[in-house]
Amino acid sequence: MGYEKFLRNNNILRGDFMDFRDLIIKKRDGKRLSEAEIDYFVKGTSVGTIPDYQISAMLMAIYLKGLDDEETAELTAAMTRSGKVLDLSGIRGIKVDKHSTGGVADTTTLILAPLTASLGLPVIKMCGRGLGHTGGTLDKLEAIPGMRVELEPEEAVRQVNKSGIAIMGQTAELAPADRVLYGLRDVTGTVESIPLIAASIMSKKLAAGADAIVLDVKWGSGAFMKSPEEAERLGEIMLEAGKRAGKNMAALITDMNQPLGNCIGNSLEVIEAVEILKGKADGDLKTLSLELGSRMLMMGGIVKDRRQGFELLNRNIANGRGLEKLEELIYIQGGDPDVLNDYGLFGRAACGLAVKAEKSGFVSETDTYNIGRASAVLGAGRLRKGDKIDYNAGIVMKKRLGEPVEKGEALAEVFASSGNKCQDGAEIIRNAVKIGKEPPKKKPLISREIIQDL
Amino acid sequence: MGYEKFLRNNNILRGDFMDFRDLIIKKRDGKRLSEAEIDYFVKGTSVGTIPDYQISAMLMAIYLKGLDDEETAELTAAMTRSGKVLDLSGIRGIKVDKHSTGGVADTTTLILAPLTASLGLPVIKMCGRGLGHTGGTLDKLEAIPGMRVELEPEEAVRQVNKSGIAIMGQTAELAPADRVLYGLRDVTGTVESIPLIAASIMSKKLAAGADAIVLDVKWGSGAFMKSPEEAERLGEIMLEAGKRAGKNMAALITDMNQPLGNCIGNSLEVIEAVEILKGKADGDLKTLSLELGSRMLMMGGIVKDRRQGFELLNRNIANGRGLEKLEELIYIQGGDPDVLNDYGLFGRAACGLAVKAEKSGFVSETDTYNIGRASAVLGAGRLRKGDKIDYNAGIVMKKRLGEPVEKGEALAEVFASSGNKCQDGAEIIRNAVKIGKEPPKKKPLISREIIQDL
Repeated sequence: MGYEKFLRNNNILRGDFMDFRDLIIKKRDGKRLSEAEIDYFVKGTSVGTIPDYQISAMLMAIYLKGLDDEETAELTAAMTRSGKVLDLSGIRGIKVDKHSTGGVADTTTLILAPLTASLGLPVIKMCGRGLGHTGGTLDKLEAIPGMRVELEPEEAVRQVNKSGIAIMGQTAELAPADRVLYGLRDVTGTVESIPLIAASIMSKKLAAGADAIVLDVKWGSGAFMKSPEEAERLGEIMLEAGKRAGKNMAALITDMNQPLGNCIGNSLEVIEAVEILKGKADGDLKTLSLELGSRMLMMGGIVKDRRQGFELLNRNIANGRGLEKLEELIYIQGGDPDVLNDYGLFGRAACGLAVKAEKSGFVSETDTYNIGRASAVLGAGRLRKGDKIDYNAGIVMKKRLGEPVEKGEALAEVFASSGNKCQDGAEIIRNAVKIGKEPPKKKPLISREIIQDL
Repeated sequence: MGYEKFLRNNNILRGDFMDFRDLIIKKRDGKRLSEAEIDYFVKGTSVGTIPDYQISAMLMAIYLKGLDDEETAELTAAMTRSGKVLDLSGIRGIKVDKHSTGGVADTTTLILAPLTASLGLPVIKMCGRGLGHTGGTLDKLEAIPGMRVELEPEEAVRQVNKSGIAIMGQTAELAPADRVLYGLRDVTGTVESIPLIAASIMSKKLAAGADAIVLDVKWGSGAFMKSPEEAERLGEIMLEAGKRAGKNMAALITDMNQPLGNCIGNSLEVIEAVEILKGKADGDLKTLSLELGSRMLMMGGIVKDRRQGFELLNRNIANGRGLEKLEELIYIQGGDPDVLNDYGLFGRAACGLAVKAEKSGFVSETDTYNIGRASAVLGAGRLRKGDKIDYNAGIVMKKRLGEPVEKGEALAEVFASSGNKCQDGAEIIRNAVKIGKEPPKKKPLISREIIQDL
């Protein structure tokens, strides 16, 4: 029993003071935290009155004892309230946001944002940077010479009303409690907690002010969730938290057992997205972009069903409207739209190296986590926050899961600023791509769709 | 997987660097920590290279996932190594230490230390201060006017060789890692962990340099351990850690479901100890002092068995040698030995108040934890580290468990510097002493003895 609680129980102390120790002990012993207690925790975290060492003990207790759905929704709401909530009421129409839980070669935003905007959906999207094995949309946009991603919210609102689209970095004012909590989770081994992940993602999404949110919850070797069941659980918890905040929600549970597209690295991924918008490339990346995009159009009231969404999205690939919208976005945000037709303007990596198959067979397994880490080692990502990015470094995967491969054939090509880096990256990829005698059982790209209320 | 580990696995980084996150994650997932990892943890804690927030996440992971006996012994050894280990080789004879896990009205040290010293056992004892519901021998000694308890180790060694006894505060140089860990455990809800308690106690005892240690492991309403089984488990783990460090060990599992003596508070407890040394008082406090004292004499090679120990201890009560040794101790450490014959020299509390029974019956239960807290509220202890102590405040219990009581009869008397404090203390005691229709089942004072090797 904490000191203050003792005093209170004995009527020596009165009032609303909480001893944070009592809250830690409650969670440590597997009990529920009340809404007032969660609020006290989040406020104390963002204001700085609860010291780091108490927050991290609480985080470990939450990691090991969990939070139920109600506690998670309350944590999410309290984290959202810890900062500014964007007011998007100045934008006409239903604002639909999309969020991916993070993967490798996932460039869906660069495809679906201009495509849906070209169909009249107002797109105002806050994105993050890459960290660890995952990439970030902001970094990819910055690979485009001149592109500016730090927009003031008011500026972004004006831009969306004029051009229908704005893609920008998160302002520091959104969910500041999450920054503190995420920073501590990162160094205390408490990142991989479903309720904490859900609250972290949803608090930022709710603060970003959209009316509806489509979630892309990934599972597999390149995702934080290792099984479809875990991903479904995460999706359901996030849906619940969004629903309680009055948002229209949907989630797709998607496969991340291999890189989604074939290109990993910033300018490489922009190029792949542009090729898809030009109608020159397809595959899982295009399919998932259209699946997510059609949900966004449904939730935005633009189409009545998925089939119609696919039809319109495919039409605006064929007629070039999606690509035009991307060109417009690049232009108004200060970038050079000529890159869309002259990829040489991105610059190029000094060195390249093919990763060759050491035997014949079928691509039976890809350790997508380590492929993502290889791209960071090559210079395309950040192993640590603050690492510099080489926009032209990266990987082009030449084979997908289940494809036959001959000994000596290229599995991938790597690009970096030095031969040593290429060697290091190639070595990781060699170990990450397994070749077996049989093709593996094919997994569906989308294993489940959770729809709350369309 | 931590960043550095990833780099190491991929041969990018080589060397002995540990990412403390990996250690937290290992324990979080219920795995064993290696000796090198525990050493890294303790070194980083005492040197300050591991930040507080990582230490507290590790402490919560340890609290919830445990440490096995080997890990606990390794943690103890590493914590002992974190500071100075006293060299008692300058003292002739076998040095036997005693440690109690903390209780209420436990004044055994003031009785058994002079008694065993008067029988030729060299006694050099480092003691702590009271905190929360428990008292501390240092505070009790300081209730004696003039008494000095901060001795340099060299001075204490000389004093023991001359007079056979020294009682002193712990130097800051012993087990400094424990101070950091204890401070964090206190504020992160990770105090009540058996392996952490065992390592904390034993690291300080091992650093204090004795050859043999008798442990008094308490259980019950006034102890940290709530059941005899928990206390036995704690005793066994501490014994194991001591044994691995080459110490001769014994432990008694003892009852703390009521205050051990009848006096609680600093000068009050000194007076009760003196009365026992004078042969004028007995009861559980005297019995336990003789039980522990006889084990010390056995381990010190002074007597061959418990019976002979009791005989000699009782003889030195009867002939006054024990009291003389206490007088000598007080004298050489600067105190006024006249207090032994004139208790008025302690001064006295301004106010006193009787706590009267509200009905007739039998004392059926005592919430000893809250009786200890009441004594702190009266001014005799510290609710918080650094609180000032009123040496004359305290409680005299008038009834023991199972005794019959008439309505209106005094259950206890409380003493403090103000009537308000007396009221507050009395109120807590009134709630802490339950009166039932039947006397409760009597529990043995000593429920088990664990002897390693005498």
